[in-house]
Parts: sequence; C-alpha cells; structure tokens
Amino acid sequence: MRTIVVALGGNAILQRGEKGTAEEQRKNVKMTASQIASLVKDGYRVVITHGNGPQVGNILIQNEVARGEVPAMPMDICGAESQGMIGYMMQMSIRNALREIGLDIPVVTVVTQTLVDRQDPAFLNPTKPVGPFYDERWARERQEKYGETWVEDSGRGWRRVVPSPDPKLIIEGESIKALVDKGHIVISTGGGGIPVIQDENGVLSGVEAVIDKDLGAERLAVAVGADTLMILTDVNGAAINYGTTEERWLGKVTLSELKKFEKEGHFKKGSMGPKVAAIIRFLEHGGEQGIIASLDKAIPALRGETGTLVVPG
Amino acid sequence: MRTIVVALGGNAILQRGEKGTAEEQRKNVKMTASQIASLVKDGYRVVITHGNGPQVGNILIQNEVARGEVPAMPMDICGAESQGMIGYMMQMSIRNALREIGLDIPVVTVVTQTLVDRQDPAFLNPTKPVGPFYDERWARERQEKYGETWVEDSGRGWRRVVPSPDPKLIIEGESIKALVDKGHIVISTGGGGIPVIQDENGVLSGVEAVIDKDLGAERLAVAVGADTLMILTDVNGAAINYGTTEERWLGKVTLSELKKFEKEGHFKKGSMGPKVAAIIRFLEHGGEQGIIASLDKAIPALRGETGTLVVPG
Repeated sequence: MRTIVVALGGNAILQRGEKGTAEEQRKNVKMTASQIASLVKDGYRVVITHGNGPQVGNILIQNEVARGEVPAMPMDICGAESQGMIGYMMQMSIRNALREIGLDIPVVTVVTQTLVDRQDPAFLNPTKPVGPFYDERWARERQEKYGETWVEDSGRGWRRVVPSPDPKLIIEGESIKALVDKGHIVISTGGGGIPVIQDENGVLSGVEAVIDKDLGAERLAVAVGADTLMILTDVNGAAINYGTTEERWLGKVTLSELKKFEKEGHFKKGSMGPKVAAIIRFLEHGGEQGIIASLDKAIPALRGETGTLVVPG
Repeated sequence: MRTIVVALGGNAILQRGEKGTAEEQRKNVKMTASQIASLVKDGYRVVITHGNGPQVGNILIQNEVARGEVPAMPMDICGAESQGMIGYMMQMSIRNALREIGLDIPVVTVVTQTLVDRQDPAFLNPTKPVGPFYDERWARERQEKYGETWVEDSGRGWRRVVPSPDPKLIIEGESIKALVDKGHIVISTGGGGIPVIQDENGVLSGVEAVIDKDLGAERLAVAVGADTLMILTDVNGAAINYGTTEERWLGKVTLSELKKFEKEGHFKKGSMGPKVAAIIRFLEHGGEQGIIASLDKAIPALRGETGTLVVPG
C-alpha cells in the first residue's frame, strides 16, 4: 500500500479574500476533506500536513489586541493553538467525508514539534514576515520593548519578521508513524510544526520562529516512511521561466532536471522555491516520487494527468 | 503493567491568583511533568487528561476583544485551540522530565472530540458558566444578537452559561489506545474533549457546550482499558460532611459506600460531585480503582498513603 504525505496549502483552509470566519474555514476544509477521502478510497494511506499562516496571524492579532486583559502568548504557543484549531476542523471533516463513502477509518491530529538547530544561521537573520502591518512608531516600540525584528515592507507599512530555520526532525515522528502503520489517518506538523530547539542535555524549548510548511512536510514524509510527497497548492505545478513568454509548466521531470532548473533560479523564494526544495530533499532521502499540483486535482495528479511529477534519476 | 488515566485539575497548569502568562503556565506544567515522570518511572503506563477552564476563558476574551479585527471563533474551535496550547506545553515538559531521569519515551497530544447525545436534556438547560463577568446590557445584547444564555451571578455581574452534556464516547479513542498500547504517553480529551454531536447519518458537528473534564476522563479511561483513574486536584481527597465539624476525609472506601455518601448529598456539584461521579462510573464500567488526591501526592496516593481510594465492592 502506498503511503502519501499530502501538504495542503493555505487555500485548503481559507480562500483569497476571505476573512477567516469559522464558516468559511469549515466550508473550505469540507471541500478539502472530500479530496482526501477520494485518495483514501483509491487505496492510498494518507498523512496530512497543512499551512497555518492566516490562522496564526489572526491568533497573534487577538493576542495583541487583548493584551491589556489577557497575557499575550509567545509565537510557539500561538502555533500550537492553530494546530489544535485546524486539526480539529480537519479531523472532523475528513471523518465525515469518509463515512459518506462508507469508510470508517480513525482520523486524528497530533500536536507536533519540529526540532531545529539552535545554531541555525536563520536565527541571526530573521526573514519570515508574520502578522499584520503596523506603523513605524509601533514597530520601533516593539523592537525596543520586546527585542523583536521589524522591517519596512515596500510602502505597505512595518511588519514583524522572525527566523525561518531549517527543520531537522519531527519530535513526535515515532507516534505519528505508529498510527500511520495502523492505518489511521494522521494530521500533523501543522504550519511546519512548532519550532523547538534542544540544549546540550536534550532539553527542548520553544522558539519564536516559523518553519516552512513544505520543508516540514518533507521531514514528516521521511519520518513515516512515505513513498510519495504531494504538495497541493493554488497553481497547477512548477513552471520554468514563470511569468515570461517562455513560461513552460513542468510535467514529468527527473530529480536531476529539477535540480538544474532550481540552480538556474527558476523557482521563486517563498512560493515555488520551498516546494521544489522539499521535493528535491525528499527524493534525495529515498522518496519515490514528488508531486506539485492544484488542490482540486490530487487524483488526476497521482495518475500523472496533471501537475508536476518528480521522479528519481 | 498498570495503565492509569491521570485527570489533572486546573492547578496543574495555573495556580490561583495567577493571570495565565506563558511563564506561569510553563512553570506549573513543569512541576506537573515531574510528577508524571515519577509515575512512569514507577512502572505505570500513563494517559493524561486535563482541564482547560482558564485557558479557554482567556481565548474567549481574546476573541471577544479582537472581534472588530478578527472573526471570533465559536466555542468548539476555542476549545480545540486550548487543547493545542496545553498539550504542547505538557508534551514538551513531560518529555524533558523523562529525559532528565534517563527515560526516552514518546509523549504526544491527540486533539480529541467527545461525542455527546444531541438529545441530552442539558441542551435545554445551560448551566455551566464560561468566560468573564459582564454587565447586564452586554448580556442582554448577546442574548438577542447571538441567542446565547446569560445569567446573573450573585451580584458579581452577568456570565454566559452553556450546556454541560454528558460525555458518551471519545471519538479518537481507537487512535489513543493504539498509542497507549505501544507504550507512548498520550495527552488527550483536554477540557473533557471538544463536544460534538452526531446526526442520523453519523455526521459529526461541534456544539457550544462544555464537557466536565472528570466525566470525560472516565470515558477516556474506559476507551484505553485503564485499570486506574486518578483525579488530581487541590484537596487531599473526598470528604463527607465537608466544611462542618463532622467533616471526615475518606481514605479507602468501597464503591457501595461511596455511592451511599453520594446519595446522601455529601459531594458538592461542580467541585467534588463530578469527581466522585466519574469514579463511580469508572468502577461500574469495570475499572479496578479510582483515586482522588492532591496534585503533589500522586505517588503516595497510589501507595494508599494519602487521598481517597475507591475499590469495587
């Protein structure tokens, strides 16, 4: 039986322009859940991970606005909250979608920590923007008061940036694998996982950082011994010369071809870049295939009818 | 090997008078984690559940205060957030505490839904207060606008009340048991679990309600096939004639004795009442022993040196 890790993009939970009400999220998650159910019906063992940007962004705003009444939580705890929130909606929806097609399979969310290297150079150079835009005065005050890093973003205002260290290990990997091996559907490593570091005695602690969810998905795929890593997003796959007249969407490519394109700078940082990087890593760690496809085309993509399929070689 | 479900009271995470900062919670959870680690060291297989009152209360306030900027989430989603938050802090702390004594055992939080009967009479009679006190005008507006139920609380102001239906089934029970059987330490059913109902087709949906965490713990104990249910709280055990000159703390009692005391009205609703009810149910469902003890005396209580120990008979 094939084991597939599905990395869901933000559009699996929230569509562009939506504000993030519970109704919107539940509606989108329900649609996503029926996609997942089709994969399960087709005989795949499915492990799910997802982004959490808009959700953790909203939780951060709530913490900020209510700071006078309720102590604001640090980012690692906010991330954990978003895993609970999204995981709950997903496990319920997927269970419901499976039942609808006559399948009674346990679906469960595991709160997940992802180990990063405390010496990761990313900690010296925060680059990942989080939360909303504020004015310069706010940014300066936060910088002084809390030691946060804020940057001006091309005239749109000031935004906090945090380190985006490289994920090393899924701390709960053994538990997740035990469940997957039992045939349960597991949702985990939400938002790339809660970033934690380890001291010289192996003691874990949370850090204020954000892990790329696709790179986290790769670590998850290795942890559960998946053969396929499928990244579902809002475009049909990876393209070279993207946005130019020479634009060409990639169908089936080999690892070495993809690495060549990556080296040539075809994939944008912060969007297609980490997706391609995750799939390259996955194949280099023994994965059999990597797929980048549109959220609503998971099944055709697995059949090679659409999307970008990356194979060893 | 004995399997023990430990139900942690609010004081395991937050002490009376504390505001609920991350530092306070982490400090308390760390102390609790060392208790749990001692149990594991003594050879018990441990499953953990916990209250979430102050945490979900704070999340509800944040949602309310920030409502103008971020869509407020319903109570089931806030409960899921609190499970993520508390579970994360606990799984990290327990793992650290185990490592400190040389044990390398997976610790994991499962986001947990608890099935309640949609016909539960509690839905017609909301009684469980949630969130902070407000004035009458606020309460009336919320009643009209959102159909919530608010009650005046003995001169302290108005407070929202929600139904507290009886927990029937831990939806993720099979996954939790699979992990426990593997020897992993599982944290689940936080705050009694996220209350969900099932329609005639088996489709789940969340409800605005609160499940008693001790009654939820009983369902969890049955789901994992535990032999011991231990409820840790801020008093030394159950007492009869509590608060009178005839007060007597209960040591070792039989199920039938405890049921007699319960019938006589010795245990206060909302405090010792549900703890005693949970233990009675547990023994009636085949549990071997129920314990009510002080959080810092888990080990002596298991040795019968302190706390209330309830046995069949």
